[in-house]
Parts: sequence; C-alpha cells; structure tokens
Amino acid sequence: MLIRCGYDIRFETQARTAMVALLSVHPSRHQDLRTPQRLLASPDIPLYQFEDAFGNVATRLTLPLGEVSLSCDFVIEDEGEPDEEAPDGPQSAVEDLPDHVIPFLLSSRYCETDRLMTVAWSNFGQPMSARERVQAIVDFVHNHIEFGYHYARSDKTAWNGYQERQGVCRDFAHLAITLCRCMNIPARYCTGYLGDIGVPPVDAPMDFSAWFEVYINGGWYVYDARHNQRRIGRILMARGRDATDVALTTAFGPAILQHFEVRTEETSTMG
Amino acid sequence: MLIRCGYDIRFETQARTAMVALLSVHPSRHQDLRTPQRLLASPDIPLYQFEDAFGNVATRLTLPLGEVSLSCDFVIEDEGEPDEEAPDGPQSAVEDLPDHVIPFLLSSRYCETDRLMTVAWSNFGQPMSARERVQAIVDFVHNHIEFGYHYARSDKTAWNGYQERQGVCRDFAHLAITLCRCMNIPARYCTGYLGDIGVPPVDAPMDFSAWFEVYINGGWYVYDARHNQRRIGRILMARGRDATDVALTTAFGPAILQHFEVRTEETSTMG
Amino acid sequence: MLIRCGYDIRFETQARTAMVALLSVHPSRHQDLRTPQRLLASPDIPLYQFEDAFGNVATRLTLPLGEVSLSCDFVIEDEGEPDEEAPDGPQSAVEDLPDHVIPFLLSSRYCETDRLMTVAWSNFGQPMSARERVQAIVDFVHNHIEFGYHYARSDKTAWNGYQERQGVCRDFAHLAITLCRCMNIPARYCTGYLGDIGVPPVDAPMDFSAWFEVYINGGWYVYDARHNQRRIGRILMARGRDATDVALTTAFGPAILQHFEVRTEETSTMG
Amino acid sequence: MLIRCGYDIRFETQARTAMVALLSVHPSRHQDLRTPQRLLASPDIPLYQFEDAFGNVATRLTLPLGEVSLSCDFVIEDEGEPDEEAPDGPQSAVEDLPDHVIPFLLSSRYCETDRLMTVAWSNFGQPMSARERVQAIVDFVHNHIEFGYHYARSDKTAWNGYQERQGVCRDFAHLAITLCRCMNIPARYCTGYLGDIGVPPVDAPMDFSAWFEVYINGGWYVYDARHNQRRIGRILMARGRDATDVALTTAFGPAILQHFEVRTEETSTMG
Repeated sequence: MLIRCGYDIRFETQARTAMVALLSVHPSRHQDLRTPQRLLASPDIPLYQFEDAFGNVATRLTLPLGEVSLSCDFVIEDEGEPDEEAPDGPQSAVEDLPDHVIPFLLSSRYCETDRLMTVAWSNFGQPMSARERVQAIVDFVHNHIEFGYHYARSDKTAWNGYQERQGVCRDFAHLAITLCRCMNIPARYCTGYLGDIGVPPVDAPMDFSAWFEVYINGGWYVYDARHNQRRIGRILMARGRDATDVALTTAFGPAILQHFEVRTEETSTMG
Repeated sequence: MLIRCGYDIRFETQARTAMVALLSVHPSRHQDLRTPQRLLASPDIPLYQFEDAFGNVATRLTLPLGEVSLSCDFVIEDEGEPDEEAPDGPQSAVEDLPDHVIPFLLSSRYCETDRLMTVAWSNFGQPMSARERVQAIVDFVHNHIEFGYHYARSDKTAWNGYQERQGVCRDFAHLAITLCRCMNIPARYCTGYLGDIGVPPVDAPMDFSAWFEVYINGGWYVYDARHNQRRIGRILMARGRDATDVALTTAFGPAILQHFEVRTEETSTMG
Repeated sequence: MLIRCGYDIRFETQARTAMVALLSVHPSRHQDLRTPQRLLASPDIPLYQFEDAFGNVATRLTLPLGEVSLSCDFVIEDEGEPDEEAPDGPQSAVEDLPDHVIPFLLSSRYCETDRLMTVAWSNFGQPMSARERVQAIVDFVHNHIEFGYHYARSDKTAWNGYQERQGVCRDFAHLAITLCRCMNIPARYCTGYLGDIGVPPVDAPMDFSAWFEVYINGGWYVYDARHNQRRIGRILMARGRDATDVALTTAFGPAILQHFEVRTEETSTMG
Repeated sequence: MLIRCGYDIRFETQARTAMVALLSVHPSRHQDLRTPQRLLASPDIPLYQFEDAFGNVATRLTLPLGEVSLSCDFVIEDEGEPDEEAPDGPQSAVEDLPDHVIPFLLSSRYCETDRLMTVAWSNFGQPMSARERVQAIVDFVHNHIEFGYHYARSDKTAWNGYQERQGVCRDFAHLAITLCRCMNIPARYCTGYLGDIGVPPVDAPMDFSAWFEVYINGGWYVYDARHNQRRIGRILMARGRDATDVALTTAFGPAILQHFEVRTEETSTMG
C-alpha cells in the first residue's frame, strides 16, 4: 500500500526565534520512502537535521522575523496490515528487561508514576499476562477519558487527565503509559501520521496522532488508547518518554502558529 | 588532595525486587581514582553495570528476599580547587547551542518550564550576561526556599518548591534548573559526594548532595543553589535532566531503606 | 546449564604501561550471571570500565612496574543449546539492510575486502540463499586453512591467511568475515569463552576462542569457520569489525605476557 | 568569510546498486551554513541520512540502472583563520587520555601500526613535546612521499606508502596518522573541502581533500602532511579511523564514476 503524507505549517514571529522540529519520518521507516522526503521552508532558510537521544530525526532552524512556512510531501510504502498484536504469556520480571528499556519505566514530565501507583496497582494488580494487563489499561483509559479537541492543554499530565477525565489523544497516551510503567511494563510515547485508512472517515481536520508502545516479551508493540483498535497505516515520526521529548515543534521564544494542515491518505501513484 | 568516599546502605524487602542504582563515580572522574571503586553487596549477589543514556554508570541488581547491604569505599584525587567560575559575556542564542544540550532546555518530571515561564521572564528578563543571569537565579532560589531535611518529598516539583518555599537540596536544584531553562540556558541536575571540605563542619549526618550545571559559552559550569557558594571537593556521580534520571536507587517494588550512611572526607593515605 | 568461566593472566613490565582489556562478559549476557563477575588485579590497582563503540565492556588499567596478575572467576547460566541456525531465504539487498550493520560490510585492518573481492565472487557468486552462501564460505575457509597454534601472527590479515593457508581461530574468522562482506553479507568478529562442552575434550591448554556472526534476514547468527559445527556454551565477551577492535589486551608499551590460563567448564554448583 | 562549496558527481550502473555517501558537511559545521545544504539526485530518487558511528552524516541511496547525478551547492561561513596551532607542553600519558580517543590509537585498514612501530620509535622516540613530535612526523611524511595524482590506489596502506614513497593526500594522511598512533598520539582521518584560499591557485581540477587531526592536551588539532602548512577554509565533511570509514561513496556493486567536479571558493554573496 502506498500512502501519501505531508503537511503545511506556518508560523509568525516578532523576532528571530530558534526552533526544533520533529517533523520527519522516523529512521525505522526511511527504507519505505518511495519519493524523497524533503522538508521545505519558505523563505528558503537553512535547516539541518540531527539525531536526538531517542533516535528521532530532529530539525533545527531559526525562524526569521515575519512568516515562515514549513512543508513536506512524500509517498511511503506500508504493509497495509493492522498494528501487530503483542504475543501472550507471562509478564517479564524487571530484572530480565534489557538495560535500554529501563528509562521507559520511570516518571517523566507528563507521566507521574509516583502519583498513579495506587490507582494502577488497585486496578491492574491481579494476575494477568502482560498483554492482558496492557489491554485492561487501554480499555480503562479509553473509557475513563472523554475525547474532545477543546480539552487540549499543554501542561496537562497523566495525573491531571486521570482526574479531569477529558483530553485529546496525547492525554489518552500519557495516562495509559503511566499506568503501564507503574505496573513495570516499559511504555513509550509515539507521534506520527494516522489517516482514516480502513475506518470510516472522520469529519474533522486531520492532525498528527499520538499513540504509545509497550515492551512485551522482547519487542515493542503499538497500542492506541484513544481509538482502542488496531489501525492500518501508522507512519511513525518520533518516540520518546512523553510529549516533551517529541513535541512537533519547540520554539525558544514566541512563535504563533498561523496555519496547520496535515495530509495522510492512501494513494495509487507516486506522482 | 585525596578524598575518601564511601557509603553503606541497607534495604529490606518482602520479595525479590529489581533495582537500578546510580551509586558509582561518574566516568569523567574514573581517571582520578587512586584505589579500586568496588561496589560490594552482602549477600554477594551478582551486580552488573551499564552506561545509561546520560553517560552515567548505572548498576542493576536484584534484591533477594530479606536484607541486602550495598557498600563502597575508595580514595580519589581532587584538584582541591573551588568550583570553577563561569566566563562572563553575552548569553548564547539558542540557535548557536550545540544539538546535544537541547534536551536540557526542555521540561522534565520535576522541572515544569511551562509553569514557571512567567516567573522566570518577569524576574530575570532584563539585559544581563549569562553568568549574571544564572547568579541572579541562584540568589533568588537560595533566598526563596527554606532548607529543612523534613521538607523532602519524592513528588515535589520545581513548581511545588516555588510555591511551598521549603525544600532540600534537590528542590533548590530543581527550581534553579527550571528557571535557567525558561531563560534558554541549558541546565542539568547532578548528584554526588560533597563533604565539608574548606567549610565549617555541619552537625548533621552526611548525605549525598544535589547541585546543577549550566551551559555557558561552550562549557558546563557548576552552581549550587542550596549553598550558593563555590565549594571544594565535589565528586560527581551522575547527571540527568532532573532527579528522576539520577535517583540513587530505583526499586521496582517495595524495598525499605533500613540504613544509610555516606562518607566524604579529606585523607592523607590510601590505606 | 551452569558454566564456570575464568582466567588468570600475568604481565611483566619494565615501566608503567597503560592497558585496555576486553576481558569481561558481553553486556548481552549480564543477566545470565549467577555469581558476581569480579575482575581482580594483584596488586590491587584501580581498574575502571567503559562501554566501547561496539557496546563491549572495556577495562582500563595502568600496569605498574613489575608483575601484575588479572583474574576472574564466575558462574553463568546458558541454555545449553547449540548455536542457533540461521533462517533460510533469499539474501537481503544491501539497500534493505539497517544503517547500523553497514560498517560490517566494509574493509577493516585484518579484513581487506578490496583484495579478496574476486576470490569471493568467483567462488560464491552463483545464486544461493544467504545461509547457503555463508555455509559455502565457512566450508571453504575450514578446508582452505590448516589449523596450528604456531601459525599465530599478530599482523596476519585475511589476505595473508588466504595465501599462506595456515592459521589459528582468528585467521579462520578473518577470512570468512572478509568473504562474507565481499558478498554483501554483514559480518562481525567475536571473542569469548568456548569450552569442550558436548564435544570430545581437546588435549591442549584452553584459550579464548574467536568466531563470527553474520546478519541474515534481520538477525545476527553465529558461525565458526575453525570448527565448522554448531557448538554449545559460547560465552561472548566482545564483538567488533575484526581482532583489532576486540584484542583481549592492548598494551601501550612493552608488557610481556608471563602466564595465561583460561577455564570454561560445565558446573553443577555456584560455590 | 563566506565560502561557496558544491559538487557534481555522476555514476553509471548496470544494475540497481546500493550506495552510502559521505558527502555532507560535518554536523560541527551545521550552524555555519548560510544557505540550505540540499543534496539533490537526478533522477529524483529517495535519499535518506543517518548519523554513522563516528558522528558523520551518511546518505543512503540506491542507484537505479543507468545514470545518476548527485549535486550539492551551499554557502557556509568560516572564520577565515588558519588552522589553529596545537598548544605546546608534555605529551599526555595514555592512561590520562579519555576513553573515546582510544580507538584512534589502534590499527585500522590503512594504518598498520604494528608494521610501522619500529620506524616510528626509531625516528620520533627522543624526548619531545606532543606538538613537536607531530610536527616532526608531518615534516617526515611531507618529505618522504612524492605527491602525484596518478599514484592513487584504493588498497594502498600507510605501510605501502612508506615503502613506495609515492601517493596522494590520503596516503600522506595515512602514514602520518599511523606514525602518530605508534607514538601513542591519537590521530583520526578527515575529509572535506579545501579551496585555494590564501594560497596561490593550483592548476589542477579541484578535488576533496584529506587531512588528519591529532589529540593533544585535551583537544583535536588539524595537521596536513600533504601541504604541511596551516590553511584557511577547511570545511570538514567526515572523520574516521582512516579512509575506509569516510569514503566519499561506497557502492555495493559496480558503479562507474563518469563525472566528478568539486567547487570551493570564497564568495561575497549568498545568491
């Protein structure tokens, strides 16, 4: 399956403003690109990429005074299969987890494991396989939080989401991640493209999506507490401990978002 | 100057419990060791080290049921000079900072830059050099928070510390770090040994200490908002975004701390 | 299966001599340790570990004037299964290989792909699966080189081994690695413990062993051109591009090896 | 000073051929770019970048059957100062060198320290500062090898260069690097742009240049055994152990170079 992805984003600034953007496809998908993925700025300012501490492609740029547009458009190949199901079986003991997954058991800016430990153990502490436990957490979060675009708030943490019971996809992800970590299941936050492929089209402007991955039985598996279903055509951009690490753009000064448009759709041609 | 450092820590558990400990001297000080730094466990369980994502030496172990002691004792050489003073001069623009310091400008578990942005800019926004700005922040934090061992709380963030005005050395560090990051000065959290060398002895049991480093003019420089003075003989153990990353021990299950003793003192012999 | 491993090595020097040793179990086996793996020096000089660029545990030490012994002894758990067989199927195109395996396609000190390209393609260029091709290479090398301890020479390369047709286990590995790389199959050099488990005991002093791994169908698989059989109980110490990267010890000055003893044997107790 | 750099390279292939190219400016110079550094392929095939093990930007691409051009053109700012002189003072003991420079003391494909150890110590073993020793090595190599474009050979090592006394800039670098390593001075190979800035123009088509860096007194310093002078306007592309690690292009199959043109010149405009 070929998927065409892209975006057009425009900022307005009152002064030169440094920015870091995580708006590139994740290296794990580089070999699926069927056309160049070229991040263009208008005006044509210098951009450069670096690999961040989580293995994502980050772009650094300096917005000049005035308006700057960032855009991208590319075609990528996808297997067209729903998210792979995690294998069943007993949960790994923490002592058997590899070193590199340990950070994904700890607290982070939006995932306060210390505050949700009791909630987690009282709800999900009974004997279960890792897969059952993650599914129970996802079911819980999916039902506990009411989705609404107007509930988005940049400082809302998992604890806030748990108490306020309202949020957007990132709040679903943060709460589910936190509960998994409390239960000693490594969990990491993901952002990327997710179009309405294989599901009824949604009557809302398309946005990037947030989901999460858990480490079960030696591998990472995708879960999505917002939709609570295995979806087709996720195109990963970045992973991190939570939304702090993978903000689409981080501006180091005031930069007003004037325009934001994301595209993700199945296509039959690369032209 | 030779400094003898060490600790004796004892845990009690009700069940096998995985643990990660950041109780080793930082690799940047390895070449100053004058005796082996041997982390011993009693009973003699397997331990192994790995380098974490921040370049620290982390130790993994599994506490068996019952009591486990961890101890260490070593002699290290130190220049015996006070913390180096940062150079003066204009603050670097974010666009000129190297890629690897960018994470130390972002929010983290205990350092909510989003919540303290206004506090930071209203207090420290006037024209100043980077060094003056950091010193102004350190002076502010030093005076704003009242020190008291009983104020320690594991979920206290910079925002909480700012509001409650009470804390321990880590709370001083978290607030100062957060304010520096708000002002676009990269700041990272440090833990290590800090004895009463060159200062009057303190009549309290010795503990590990927390301080922080800021990135000014191409280098990292030590600041200590708790003491607000340049000290002699800091022996760094670990650095990270905040106390989450460099907790002395993280137990993945209940492990009760039964005994805790830290030693740091000038010595004239290695015996 | 429990395996007891260890060594006693003694050097004599005429002056303080810096050394790097790759004499620790590989991190991928850390969680199999059943007793502490404690590297001891006599006299009790400071040692410290770092993770090298290939993910191995390297130890740095400075040999004082005179004699220094290094020793280690530990028990490790092993599945007791023969080396896993690589899956069959067509060889991956280079364009589909992940970025991190690319260095293992290039030339290195002892593996001159440029010089052996014609040998490789003329012998192994016909249509085959990756597994068949590696096996053909291993069969070829196994038969082409005559084993003999006295053939060891520190500057012998794959090209030399190919021409001289004599060598030790590292020469078998270097030639097989080079031929695999020529055929666009990533290959890396391994060192570790390999006892006579499941095979008739060999009447020779035990040594560390060298083997190699190839990247087939998304995973690394062990091959051993010296023995040309799937063995039980390999305990990996280090991996690299060739023997340069994983020399057991590299002395930066004259250090004479006075004693060398390696132990690897199945055991039923940890005592 | 503004410098305009760029290249046009064209390959012809008989079949799809995977390639890795190190044709991007080194990350340490990213912040000096004044126009985008856009690597273009014609036809417009997908390209993607990754950071290699040495911190260079590597590009992966797959040449389709037929002709493919790669081109780049950008303006970069440079201080316009000659290569910085290394500080004087005693050479660091190996035991005091940081861990990350150790690989640059070892043998590599084109730098056989084992073979040149005696040459090195007999010529450069007398008491000298590190800077004096490196300069003595550079003087020696500069005089020992006769430069000539037609002496280029892809399998020529430092040892070959020493014996044949003929070579191109990479052979000068390999020999000097090897002799430095033999003397326990870490040395690494560099490639990049070097125009005729501040020197009389050379009547030869411009090429990329090879030089090297040595680690003295805590920093890396540039040396150039081919020219044996401190030059202005080096624009680093990649560093590695030797030319193997930083080949401009590595094709995994036959790809014939049809056209090769490099530009590096001072400019006054970014247009």
